[in-house]
Amino acid sequence: MTESPYQTISSRYIWKSRWYHLRQDEIRTPDGSKHTYTVVEHPGAVWVVPVTAGGEIVLEWQYRYTVGEWCWEVPAGGLLPGATPEAMARQELSEEIGGTAARIERVGQFYTMNGIGTEVAHVFLATGVELGEPHREPTEIMEIKRVPIAEALRMARAGEISDGPSALALLLCEPLLAEAQQRG
Amino acid sequence: MTESPYQTISSRYIWKSRWYHLRQDEIRTPDGSKHTYTVVEHPGAVWVVPVTAGGEIVLEWQYRYTVGEWCWEVPAGGLLPGATPEAMARQELSEEIGGTAARIERVGQFYTMNGIGTEVAHVFLATGVELGEPHREPTEIMEIKRVPIAEALRMARAGEISDGPSALALLLCEPLLAEAQQRG
Repeated sequence: MTESPYQTISSRYIWKSRWYHLRQDEIRTPDGSKHTYTVVEHPGAVWVVPVTAGGEIVLEWQYRYTVGEWCWEVPAGGLLPGATPEAMARQELSEEIGGTAARIERVGQFYTMNGIGTEVAHVFLATGVELGEPHREPTEIMEIKRVPIAEALRMARAGEISDGPSALALLLCEPLLAEAQQRG
Repeated sequence: MTESPYQTISSRYIWKSRWYHLRQDEIRTPDGSKHTYTVVEHPGAVWVVPVTAGGEIVLEWQYRYTVGEWCWEVPAGGLLPGATPEAMARQELSEEIGGTAARIERVGQFYTMNGIGTEVAHVFLATGVELGEPHREPTEIMEIKRVPIAEALRMARAGEISDGPSALALLLCEPLLAEAQQRG
């Protein structure tokens, strides 16, 4: 644990939901002044890069109500209470693309919005993925497209994967994808 | 404009702040069922990759109250009313690292959290950057480190840049960084 340069004077929740909470803290900065800092308290989420046995990456073309657009993404979802990130990765694979994976490995993690919230993105690579029947929620509207690994990486580098965490997840997987391709 | 597969029945703000609002919509999904969708309405933000005339990238080692950790990042900040993304990029450079840039170019954009909010990350590359006296807010606690371009890209690829949008901004700049390095 790093010692915080901030002092938390008080803390209260101003809104709670199934997905995240809004916590409002009164803090003191090192110069002695007081500020209000509102934090999006998020349980974290997983982003899973699925590779089929045939060596293709499964992308989602998903309509996002928030931004009113169709976005390229990989399967992802917020952590549910009690679920480990790996279990959640398997669950999202199954729900969103009907996928089962021969192997799931943890690739890394990053913060998605550390200026306003706590969300950690846990990145997984799923290999030997077989596609089946998805079990999506009514608010998950998407189509699935399989693309060669090199094409998915090109899209990420070119800024065509408009969901930022999905693009970064793909690029973090790049060294492992080269290995996965060799394993076939 | 794509036609939305969702119908918005009603919409109200449940919280507003200087930085973002929380908007709660009642929506109808294509299957006819009603749902509540809460949207973090965010004006967008800029992430700026600063390269000095000497060909080094300026990284920030910033303490983030939200996650209670020091994070590697590039200069970034939320859009203020009336400011264009480019003006905001110049302002953040100046405030956070006392930087002035010979040239600022737009590199791309992505969504940071399209599952819960509207934030667009506008990515800029600033070249010919000269460092001066920063003008930080009391809640901006950071140190600055200059690293070679190749080292910054290695850190991004290795998952060492824990602020995801900063890591992706660096990787989206990669082709232009090669050019910048040749220009010297």
